[in-house]
Amino acid sequence: MSDGPPVASKILLIVMDGASDRPVNGTTPLASADTPNLDALAYGGINGIMDTVGIGVRPGSDVSHLAILGYDPFKYYTGRGPFEAAGIGIDVKRGDIAFRCNFATVEDGIVRDRRAGRIEDTDELARAIREKVKVPGVDIIFKRSTGHRAALVLRGKGLSPDITDTDPHKSGVPLSECRATTGSAGARHTADIVNSVSRQVIEALDHHPVNMARKERGLLPGNAILIRGAGDVPDLPGFHGKYGMKGAVVASPGLIIGIGKLCGMECHTIGGLGIELSGSVADEKIDKAVAELRTHDFVLVNVKGADEAGHDGDFERKARFFEEMDISFKGLLHLPDVLVIVTADHSTPVSVRGHSADPVPIVMHGPGVRIDDVDRYSELIAHKGGLTRIKGLDVMPIAMDLLNRTKKFGA
Amino acid sequence: MSDGPPVASKILLIVMDGASDRPVNGTTPLASADTPNLDALAYGGINGIMDTVGIGVRPGSDVSHLAILGYDPFKYYTGRGPFEAAGIGIDVKRGDIAFRCNFATVEDGIVRDRRAGRIEDTDELARAIREKVKVPGVDIIFKRSTGHRAALVLRGKGLSPDITDTDPHKSGVPLSECRATTGSAGARHTADIVNSVSRQVIEALDHHPVNMARKERGLLPGNAILIRGAGDVPDLPGFHGKYGMKGAVVASPGLIIGIGKLCGMECHTIGGLGIELSGSVADEKIDKAVAELRTHDFVLVNVKGADEAGHDGDFERKARFFEEMDISFKGLLHLPDVLVIVTADHSTPVSVRGHSADPVPIVMHGPGVRIDDVDRYSELIAHKGGLTRIKGLDVMPIAMDLLNRTKKFGA
Repeated sequence: MSDGPPVASKILLIVMDGASDRPVNGTTPLASADTPNLDALAYGGINGIMDTVGIGVRPGSDVSHLAILGYDPFKYYTGRGPFEAAGIGIDVKRGDIAFRCNFATVEDGIVRDRRAGRIEDTDELARAIREKVKVPGVDIIFKRSTGHRAALVLRGKGLSPDITDTDPHKSGVPLSECRATTGSAGARHTADIVNSVSRQVIEALDHHPVNMARKERGLLPGNAILIRGAGDVPDLPGFHGKYGMKGAVVASPGLIIGIGKLCGMECHTIGGLGIELSGSVADEKIDKAVAELRTHDFVLVNVKGADEAGHDGDFERKARFFEEMDISFKGLLHLPDVLVIVTADHSTPVSVRGHSADPVPIVMHGPGVRIDDVDRYSELIAHKGGLTRIKGLDVMPIAMDLLNRTKKFGA
Repeated sequence: MSDGPPVASKILLIVMDGASDRPVNGTTPLASADTPNLDALAYGGINGIMDTVGIGVRPGSDVSHLAILGYDPFKYYTGRGPFEAAGIGIDVKRGDIAFRCNFATVEDGIVRDRRAGRIEDTDELARAIREKVKVPGVDIIFKRSTGHRAALVLRGKGLSPDITDTDPHKSGVPLSECRATTGSAGARHTADIVNSVSRQVIEALDHHPVNMARKERGLLPGNAILIRGAGDVPDLPGFHGKYGMKGAVVASPGLIIGIGKLCGMECHTIGGLGIELSGSVADEKIDKAVAELRTHDFVLVNVKGADEAGHDGDFERKARFFEEMDISFKGLLHLPDVLVIVTADHSTPVSVRGHSADPVPIVMHGPGVRIDDVDRYSELIAHKGGLTRIKGLDVMPIAMDLLNRTKKFGA
């Protein structure tokens, strides 16, 4: 480090989604993968393990990214809807109630298929909803996402997120009535609106030409929407105001893009939703993130492949993902004035096929860090490093201090 | 340790101000210094790293000493003024508003020199202020400190610390008007008093014989005071009541002495303000602290030299300070019934030339501690010890328990 500047001026935060594991036969995909460049970051950096949200808390990607960015999820997380809606480009505002939706097939009030035969061509259907579904005094904002997915936002006075889903979360049962979960007038009012929207959508779509054509081709019609995950849009303090740094996000999941947008960061979507089976998309993301460092002080990049392999329980593919993307880390070893942080948002152990609360490894590499003797990037040994065990909310304060950007408390 | 008593009865807490660093060329003053006795404490003790105030919080010496003594600075710290005032011997009381002051040179309302040519002879000037500056209904307490420094305390009903400084914090600009920072009547009232004091001081000093003599000798007069750092005196629970232990403080900085006084501890000032370039003053302090253990259960000693070298960015001098004072630690290895704690209040990296939030090393040495395999006193390896990573507020509870002085919670 002797030739570098004494202090970093920028931060590159790489979140390898779901990267860490519980061991299988004594090892993990990360521990067993051949990753010389990632290991070089660990060797030349300060390491530790991290509970992104809390010890024993099994976090979703949304709450863990919020925590790592310094936004306490217990304060700011109001549900997935607002982040998904922002992520697909709806300009949500504080007070809006946002939902995730599926296009679905409903016959005689019974949900026949929750994804309408995995429908893809929803542009015209979404337009019909925007044109025909009206509730007096409330703006209905609807936008399709990838595949059968969509988002709904209600904007108006006196709305409440304290309501149930219309999505019954299984097929073969009736579409659910939305109900208030509290006694508040706002919740009852909002439930009435959601039920009205749900009925009007069926009227607008059941005989829509797109659906008539699908039926003729033997495909299930997308003639209803299942509404779930109500959340009121949180008032996240802007990233720039909070840290005095210009931030950018590079990611594929709409959820992560949505978090970036709600924090006021410039967002770049690379890769499709959830489709990142090889390291190549990850490489492209890292390259883009490094390019963004030219014009930004802080870049968050989320790479997704490890999480997908973890959900599929595929040890070999998860290990291969790390090996394939390892070359991307080579260039990060010599960024002169950048604090490079590599971590995960949660564990997605192949033995669990889902998220777990096991802590994730974290390394900070750059000017001024107290280099420890951890010499591999692995969730099995990272706790031996100089960071010991930290929380997600600690990441930004530590990084800001390493950039000499913290204010002194006291004299 | 087998021949010693099973439990310590006293605590010696040595705070090496600003001792720890970020590495320069892979090492630090503490890690590279030849300190056999300090290392013997680490070898025979339990080690860890400590965030004195919080992870990623860059603390001043005042808030960090409060935390290490078990007083939550987020609850008790009200600004530097009260501690400085107490430190120079003003008997501050709860409700008082205390300020730090500089004697300064003001010409036609413009601050010409913020330190009055680094004036030293302020006894007569301070007496003139005490005799001539009067505000009805308010006690004006004024006392000189070392050099150009002084403290002002206002005592009366309805006063508020929510006011601005009269110190413009640079020269060549007018003396500032003190203004209320809230709409409260108390703040406006206090601002009026401060402005009156500011004006009366100039009247009292401008033609004072000391200043006339200085002008004749071509020196800048100390004809005004710059008032800053308003704080209301906090109601710190007494150390004896809190811990049932008789405590003493040995230090040079007025700030640390002031903390000791506000906690009700016996305080001994050794060494001048900030002048501790060699280890010898530090040795004298350690000797005094050990002597105080004869009559006290707890002694806090602050040694200052490392912090000063850190602020000056002088790696060699900082390392030499540790080497020179190391001999003082020799006698601490065999104090039979004393828990010896050696730590720092914050890092003052030579690469930063100021405080940072990097955690500090801590060792506890004495009867009953779980000796770990850390064999050197260094911020680069202390995290491997049995304390792992703790906070400043954890020190006294851990120490009290090692003395078997904690009360059981539960049955």
